Amino acid sequence: MSDGDFVREPLGVQERITADGSSSWPVEPGRYRLVGARACPWANRVIISRRLLGLEPVLSLGIAGPLHDERSWRFHNDPGNVDPVLGIEYLREAYEKAVPGYSAGVTVPAVVDVASGKVATNAYLELEEDLATQWREFHRPGAPDLFPAEHRAELDALSDEIFHDVNNGVYKCGFARSQESYDRAYDALFARLDALSSRLAGRRYLLGDTITQVDVRLWVTLVRFDAAYHGHFKCNRTKLTELPVLWAYARDLFQTPGFGDTIDFLQIKQHYYGVHRNLNPSGIVPKGPDTSGWLEPHGREALGGRPFGDGTPPGPPVEGEQVPPPA
Amino acid sequence: MSDGDFVREPLGVQERITADGSSSWPVEPGRYRLVGARACPWANRVIISRRLLGLEPVLSLGIAGPLHDERSWRFHNDPGNVDPVLGIEYLREAYEKAVPGYSAGVTVPAVVDVASGKVATNAYLELEEDLATQWREFHRPGAPDLFPAEHRAELDALSDEIFHDVNNGVYKCGFARSQESYDRAYDALFARLDALSSRLAGRRYLLGDTITQVDVRLWVTLVRFDAAYHGHFKCNRTKLTELPVLWAYARDLFQTPGFGDTIDFLQIKQHYYGVHRNLNPSGIVPKGPDTSGWLEPHGREALGGRPFGDGTPPGPPVEGEQVPPPA
Repeated sequence: MSDGDFVREPLGVQERITADGSSSWPVEPGRYRLVGARACPWANRVIISRRLLGLEPVLSLGIAGPLHDERSWRFHNDPGNVDPVLGIEYLREAYEKAVPGYSAGVTVPAVVDVASGKVATNAYLELEEDLATQWREFHRPGAPDLFPAEHRAELDALSDEIFHDVNNGVYKCGFARSQESYDRAYDALFARLDALSSRLAGRRYLLGDTITQVDVRLWVTLVRFDAAYHGHFKCNRTKLTELPVLWAYARDLFQTPGFGDTIDFLQIKQHYYGVHRNLNPSGIVPKGPDTSGWLEPHGREALGGRPFGDGTPPGPPVEGEQVPPPA
Repeated sequence: MSDGDFVREPLGVQERITADGSSSWPVEPGRYRLVGARACPWANRVIISRRLLGLEPVLSLGIAGPLHDERSWRFHNDPGNVDPVLGIEYLREAYEKAVPGYSAGVTVPAVVDVASGKVATNAYLELEEDLATQWREFHRPGAPDLFPAEHRAELDALSDEIFHDVNNGVYKCGFARSQESYDRAYDALFARLDALSSRLAGRRYLLGDTITQVDVRLWVTLVRFDAAYHGHFKCNRTKLTELPVLWAYARDLFQTPGFGDTIDFLQIKQHYYGVHRNLNPSGIVPKGPDTSGWLEPHGREALGGRPFGDGTPPGPPVEGEQVPPPA
């Protein structure tokens, strides 16, 4: 860590939603609204979990638009610029209801208690885990086990490496305030991507035959790589499309129900290029890259595997949650 | 043309250097110094012409460094930050000697009359032509004919399309001040690159079997494409390396004496990312892309051709003008 390094802000509302009432927020169908954004990788992780686990009927989804003003995430793509369930224009309103005078970051994902309008939690890491465990009673039939006990230690260790070098690593490149900080983050990022390429050359998913949460975690950064991080964050040794193993792995998941059907490339670009005016003062959004290749054959079936283990893929996105196809 | 379009400034000293004394500046060996910069594509065109024609012994070369301050091009890579022949720190000094109160752009290439210290011309287009014609007496044995009379009309027409859509087109993308201007420039750029790909699929060079000035003109933009324009100017539908015909064509020329031996990728990146702080406020220079591929086989010999026509390739760069290999 040095002076020019990017430092991620701590999350402001780190609470849990639990099945046994051991926290302030009990699991309860219909009680909460998950607020995400198509642009945000941290929200994308939880949106994918919700799809894979089939939690749509019990946990509704609000989608903040890609563009901010000085008050951060807002519902500018909704009719009247208001979330239809929460009745708010800015996500900040739900944070301020939860914590009067709230001064930490307004982030997605956030789970909001609909009746009180308060953010219950924005701790995405715990939320991913709680959706998989505390909400088990409400999983769809055939929901996969995203945190298999026999691989848990490996899943955590790998997630940690991926967090530092990849998920947060691209931000360290983009928001470095010195050449040295940038250079260090870039080297760590591509060294990790090369190591992950080797790991995935002979196995379908990161922990073997079946999708787990660590695949979700890696994938949300890969899917944004060429559209946002390659140019905007200067992660430009190579595009994802130039890394054959990771590109095939990423396409495989894109084409798996629950992954690609959560992605809106235009919103991703509008957000990164439109919001970080310190990196892109004009706010002009690149027309590229060509994203049509995401639907091309990936050939990874040859590695075998059981994507959902003993389970089954989720059905199509529910009404109102569809995304446009990659153009 | 609309409000948000990039408009290139007119050049400030549009004079000619002629063999017959019909202009203020006569052709004379040793009289002038060409000032270029490794970063700049307009300077690169003339530096390549000088190499191909073998004019090094009669027209010396000064190299401004990649970084500017508010006074524009300067000799910050030379000992004492001073050009060793002209004895100036800023190229602006030579413009001000030529035109007291000079207020147009300080650009490279510029030809400076060494004795008076005045810029004789910065009209790069006329200069390319004059080096090929007015300086003929001083060409090396085996110098190619870069403006073959039988192709002249086609060369001019093609140069014009390439100027508007490619050479200047990448700047129109990067410096657009509206989304609409950018979108239009991007579409014109990639449509033109696709047309040039088709043209070059079956012939070795733009006008057939032999290198001409229009190849020089296209190439200086292609060679900078992935290092600068793809990310910094948002020309990101595809990288050059993703356009098989143009990428092979560009590698072929890179490996031809007089082309790749004028290129310094680091200086290119330092200039674009370091100088345009309106596009890249941090000034941080990307480590990528990987440029080692420039030396890989291109396979274009299969198309036949006589790169230098009845002439021969130039020898290696003269002492003091070598560049580092692509890393």
